[in-house]
Amino acid sequence: MSAEPLRIVKTSVEKVDGIRLVTGAAKYTDDFGMPGLLYAKVLTSPHAHARIISIDTEKANALAGVRAIFTADDVPAVRHTKAGQSYPEYSPYDHVILDKKVRFIGDRVALVVAESLKIAEQALALIEVAYDVLPAVFDMEQAMQAEIPPIHDEDDAVGIYDASRNVASYRAIDIGDVQQGFQEADVIVEHTYRTQRTKHCALETHSSMGYLDENGRLVIITSTQVPFHTRRQLSQILDLPMTRIRVIKPRIGGGFGNKQGMFLEDLVAVAVLKTRKPVKLIFERSEEFIGGYSRHPQIIRIKTGAKRDGTLVAQEMHVIGNTGAYGDHAPSIQECTGRKVLPLYSIPNIHFDVHAVYTNLPVCGAFRGYGAIQGFFATECQIDEIAAQLNMDPLEIREKNRIRQDDTDRVAEAFGDAEERVMLSCGLDECIERGAKAIGWQEKRGKPSDGVMKRGVGMACAMQASGIAGVDWGSATIKLNDDGTFGLFVGATDLGTGSDTVLTQIAAEALGVDLSDIYIIASDTDLTPFDVGAYASSTTYVSGGAVKKAADQVRTAILTAAGEMFEEKVENLTYHPAETPDSRCYVANKREQRLSLKEIALYAMNQGKRQITATASNMSHTSPPPFTAQFAKVEVDTETGQITVLRYVAAVDCGVAINPALAEGQVEGAVTQGLGYALFEEMVFDDNGRLLNPNFADYKLPNAFDMPKLETILVETYEASGPYGAKSVAEVPINGPAPAIANAVYDAIGIRITDLPLTAEKVLTALKKSES
Amino acid sequence: MSAEPLRIVKTSVEKVDGIRLVTGAAKYTDDFGMPGLLYAKVLTSPHAHARIISIDTEKANALAGVRAIFTADDVPAVRHTKAGQSYPEYSPYDHVILDKKVRFIGDRVALVVAESLKIAEQALALIEVAYDVLPAVFDMEQAMQAEIPPIHDEDDAVGIYDASRNVASYRAIDIGDVQQGFQEADVIVEHTYRTQRTKHCALETHSSMGYLDENGRLVIITSTQVPFHTRRQLSQILDLPMTRIRVIKPRIGGGFGNKQGMFLEDLVAVAVLKTRKPVKLIFERSEEFIGGYSRHPQIIRIKTGAKRDGTLVAQEMHVIGNTGAYGDHAPSIQECTGRKVLPLYSIPNIHFDVHAVYTNLPVCGAFRGYGAIQGFFATECQIDEIAAQLNMDPLEIREKNRIRQDDTDRVAEAFGDAEERVMLSCGLDECIERGAKAIGWQEKRGKPSDGVMKRGVGMACAMQASGIAGVDWGSATIKLNDDGTFGLFVGATDLGTGSDTVLTQIAAEALGVDLSDIYIIASDTDLTPFDVGAYASSTTYVSGGAVKKAADQVRTAILTAAGEMFEEKVENLTYHPAETPDSRCYVANKREQRLSLKEIALYAMNQGKRQITATASNMSHTSPPPFTAQFAKVEVDTETGQITVLRYVAAVDCGVAINPALAEGQVEGAVTQGLGYALFEEMVFDDNGRLLNPNFADYKLPNAFDMPKLETILVETYEASGPYGAKSVAEVPINGPAPAIANAVYDAIGIRITDLPLTAEKVLTALKKSES
Repeated sequence: MSAEPLRIVKTSVEKVDGIRLVTGAAKYTDDFGMPGLLYAKVLTSPHAHARIISIDTEKANALAGVRAIFTADDVPAVRHTKAGQSYPEYSPYDHVILDKKVRFIGDRVALVVAESLKIAEQALALIEVAYDVLPAVFDMEQAMQAEIPPIHDEDDAVGIYDASRNVASYRAIDIGDVQQGFQEADVIVEHTYRTQRTKHCALETHSSMGYLDENGRLVIITSTQVPFHTRRQLSQILDLPMTRIRVIKPRIGGGFGNKQGMFLEDLVAVAVLKTRKPVKLIFERSEEFIGGYSRHPQIIRIKTGAKRDGTLVAQEMHVIGNTGAYGDHAPSIQECTGRKVLPLYSIPNIHFDVHAVYTNLPVCGAFRGYGAIQGFFATECQIDEIAAQLNMDPLEIREKNRIRQDDTDRVAEAFGDAEERVMLSCGLDECIERGAKAIGWQEKRGKPSDGVMKRGVGMACAMQASGIAGVDWGSATIKLNDDGTFGLFVGATDLGTGSDTVLTQIAAEALGVDLSDIYIIASDTDLTPFDVGAYASSTTYVSGGAVKKAADQVRTAILTAAGEMFEEKVENLTYHPAETPDSRCYVANKREQRLSLKEIALYAMNQGKRQITATASNMSHTSPPPFTAQFAKVEVDTETGQITVLRYVAAVDCGVAINPALAEGQVEGAVTQGLGYALFEEMVFDDNGRLLNPNFADYKLPNAFDMPKLETILVETYEASGPYGAKSVAEVPINGPAPAIANAVYDAIGIRITDLPLTAEKVLTALKKSES
Repeated sequence: MSAEPLRIVKTSVEKVDGIRLVTGAAKYTDDFGMPGLLYAKVLTSPHAHARIISIDTEKANALAGVRAIFTADDVPAVRHTKAGQSYPEYSPYDHVILDKKVRFIGDRVALVVAESLKIAEQALALIEVAYDVLPAVFDMEQAMQAEIPPIHDEDDAVGIYDASRNVASYRAIDIGDVQQGFQEADVIVEHTYRTQRTKHCALETHSSMGYLDENGRLVIITSTQVPFHTRRQLSQILDLPMTRIRVIKPRIGGGFGNKQGMFLEDLVAVAVLKTRKPVKLIFERSEEFIGGYSRHPQIIRIKTGAKRDGTLVAQEMHVIGNTGAYGDHAPSIQECTGRKVLPLYSIPNIHFDVHAVYTNLPVCGAFRGYGAIQGFFATECQIDEIAAQLNMDPLEIREKNRIRQDDTDRVAEAFGDAEERVMLSCGLDECIERGAKAIGWQEKRGKPSDGVMKRGVGMACAMQASGIAGVDWGSATIKLNDDGTFGLFVGATDLGTGSDTVLTQIAAEALGVDLSDIYIIASDTDLTPFDVGAYASSTTYVSGGAVKKAADQVRTAILTAAGEMFEEKVENLTYHPAETPDSRCYVANKREQRLSLKEIALYAMNQGKRQITATASNMSHTSPPPFTAQFAKVEVDTETGQITVLRYVAAVDCGVAINPALAEGQVEGAVTQGLGYALFEEMVFDDNGRLLNPNFADYKLPNAFDMPKLETILVETYEASGPYGAKSVAEVPINGPAPAIANAVYDAIGIRITDLPLTAEKVLTALKKSES
């Protein structure tokens, strides 16, 4: 732990971009414009599965103001991403910019670029496409029976597990001997849980704008979580060196995983390179719903065995995930349903297997929770079932089996992950204790009320990760200005989470200066060092670690300069942080002579003749999980089946919260998103695979009226591997609401709903069924 | 010397920004626009010397479209530049943004900001200023007699040598015993030379645009040679931390010293901060002539003693320079008339003194040659006079006395400069030899022709510097991209000289890659490391040295990564440059296994988990002079006095020319500018101090018809202290034309003109005088 008392870390400072955000000065992708800007629009497939026989663009091309039309014949056919040319990729390479086959309603067919959006839209209607319609499949279990033409029959796709059966990926692991384990169990429960397809619903849709700069380089301004990956992918598919591509991330209106890969950028890039003009492509909300990524629906069959005293002895989990028309993150997300979920309880014998299956539906991809949210719904419901069977308090059985500090994550070991997985910090006990107290667990649990309106309480625990150990890394550069202020350059990507603020806090703390003494420049592939991007709850832990390292190196360089000025050994000097928010830090020698940072900076300029600066990279061999225990108090209207969440407590161990207000904001946002997942969010398709609710009228998001009184408890642990003791917070809270609410409903009405969302219709049907 | 054969250095590659320059895609300051842009215009003084009693802006403010008017009351009154708050500054601090006294016709009085340029111009006419007109002085010798109110009587000016006598600065040095020296001389000559005021005439005038970015930071896009100094000066006068200021240098249309300090940026900054709108201020040509800097006119009294065999034994030089209304670079430029000129010949006894004097004329400042051009006109004419007295060949007396390799610059020692001044390289002998051969010196000299048209040849030698030793420094950052290409970030400023190309060549050479594998980002105070800027012929030598160091460090980091990949000690690896222009470099181990740069880059990304990058700073303790010997062949029309330069040879030792074509371009440009200085350029004032020729019709620049056949000879030496053996080239050739042509005129007609420019009128007057 840092020897100095903390000054800025652990403080809810205002966001460094707060003023521009609230004044509307912040620039998002759509706020950028240029003279001669062209507008792009995507023609999409009306069929769920078809071959394109021909595309006649003559009429569309003849429309005044149409500048270019692209079909599969006009663009590079490089599969994303070529194997062996990049970092490890887990996904099948089953996707090209534009293909000659369409695989879902909404799949890309052609791109129009025109002088106005209106003309582009008119041109779409003038493109005539002849399709050879193929049989389609939407159900993932049916898809594996291979009675239709395989969705992916292309010759050059790589990495598909079994294309003929539409299986994108398969994986299985075993720990101990699960059959033996079940033989030792006194009680065994088995259920099948089903989760639905949901949508990220970031306020900003996918948005990209491209242009050629004055030197003819391709510049893409884009709403992305991964500027450097986008540059890499563009470089590969366009066969352009990275010196010719610049990706700029401006302010972003949310990502939640939906912007975790190249998306519209490839289309914009080909349009810019062809027309040599600036081109903008912004998805409308309906396009976002259909064409953007969504959360994998899963079927999770799970069986758990326990001793009479509640000790869990065996667990078997079989997952099928519906990835839709393309693979994207299919393998890794499905695997994470086991990888991130199964370590929560220490179970000696485990079997886990997973299939990711192609169907003719929109594509599923990364989404906050990343497989864990589905898995925890299943396991956290089932542990309540075991508790019920054993007549135990669900809190007690959790407390008995839960992972503890210094435990090793054996699931990660079984997956062969090259990680150190000893829990250096674990505040799950305190999360459970403080959360239970806040909700009034002891008084309220197992006390079903009389009458029509029945109340109950439920709980769930969860964990997640802090970046991907051994994989994710980031870099930071810190540059001393000649007035003693600093520039901080990070490749990390603030999506609205406040990570620019958190990283500036880390730098300010380490450098002993005020926040206003540092200006952060983030996420521009030209200007900042590499960072994998914002995903897997990694930014504070991984990129923050890079900032801390760079700051420490700059501190050393400053001390070295001060040593030259004092003609004193560096070990005789002390680096003092600012004593008031307005004062800069200073260096003092043993005779208590002082040098201000400004004096040292001027010395470096005038006599030292050097730019004091450092770049540091950070990759962690651990991925310390944050933990959460969440508690819901619900009321169920037994006449309508309507569930109302009255109160909600989320206790979260995210290590040291660098900025508690921002951490609480993340918890509140994640719980809200989890609440929508639990209660009503669902993408609904007709029999032809057409999305029926691609808008916020028909796709229900939680609003202020849906929100319970929400209490957030930050349980502080000190994670020695993280910057200033920090772990992560972004994802873990989203895992709680679905099982906590389902368990509360069970507590209220004794009925177990195993399908998400927990709609009134399902509750009422179940109530009627149980009465009959 | 580099062990590897050179691949890119010493090659005349195309400029890295060449295509955008010739296609018009390059963006200069005036090419930037923004919605809501306001236009600024400066109200200037009609009086050469006056106090401002009052300024009535009511009518101007009432004009529709006027947004703001600034007078001295509205802006910070911080003198540029506060002592003790910055790097060493040599100048008096006698200048504020807007003052209550005006000191020349054209001095700033007020600033108008309006919605259009037309409205701003109309508003200027509506501002009513009441002046208390003071007596003015324009002649520098008169100005020192203090019979008028002192030009600088302000209380808070700092560093003026004697304000009551209008002496901005004074300095004297002595080497040996000059009186003793003259006693030993067999021949002594003494003359007074006068040089005129000339103008830089960069194609782009002073141009600045400012705005507040989305975070409320002040951004200044400006045509400057010194972005980092501009940031510092803005920070000081506006009392803003550097985190709140960004200075961007776009493409620049020439500087020649005129843009070597804050100029319009302060006005634009106050206008932006007040109006919160983008503001642009572009000088018209006439404003540039009057309000911009010009070259110091000097009166140089010089006396030289020689032995009968031509050995120079004593020299005495008294300089008075007219700095105009403000000090600016007055002390250092005037000192350089001795500092850079006197070392050319080894003279044991020297006295030098210099006064810089205020007058009520436009301000003089830095200008290519920086004091040396005036001095060499005097010394190189006078050495011909001695040769004439001794009946020696002027070439011979120069060759006899000239500075040689391994000599020490005793003048620099006498000035107390903290420099190592041993000449590591000196190709002056070869410059003289090859230049003389090219012009046909032996055949043509001393052969005056009969008839009206008389021909003659003349020569001159000169030297300069490569940055200021112990003062100037720069930094560079090199970042490896994940495809094996590089980003190069330099604070150095390409003014059109091609330094971006030269620095990229140095990086490409050191990294073993092709030019197209590197993208350079230059001169943005946010994005690049510090550099003092482009002046004193420093960029290739000083900033190029930083690029070389950074590249060497990156090379080491690449080798380290390759060592990890091969599991081999780094010393067993060899770094091979690209074998063809298309192939990337590679690293091979002793078993001849190869790794491409791309493979190593991917390793660093995927396994190494680090951003390979380095930042290096470079300051040199030496400032190796480039040398030149120049030869002119002229024809003088004795009926009109007209001089025609028929042929011109410039032989230059600039060390190793990184890009010979660009070096030759610099020589050609400097000789052309020197030719205008020699023959016809001159700013002419009326008796009230009003400039009579503020335009290209009345101020004569050399055009194609004025140009002789010009031959450039690059004499290669290897300067061990410079990157790849380079010294500098930008300034030294400008020093030659005036004395070479004056000496050729003497050779043709036996008449010595000691006043520049060498107009027909002066020649004819002198001819008539000599006849009578």
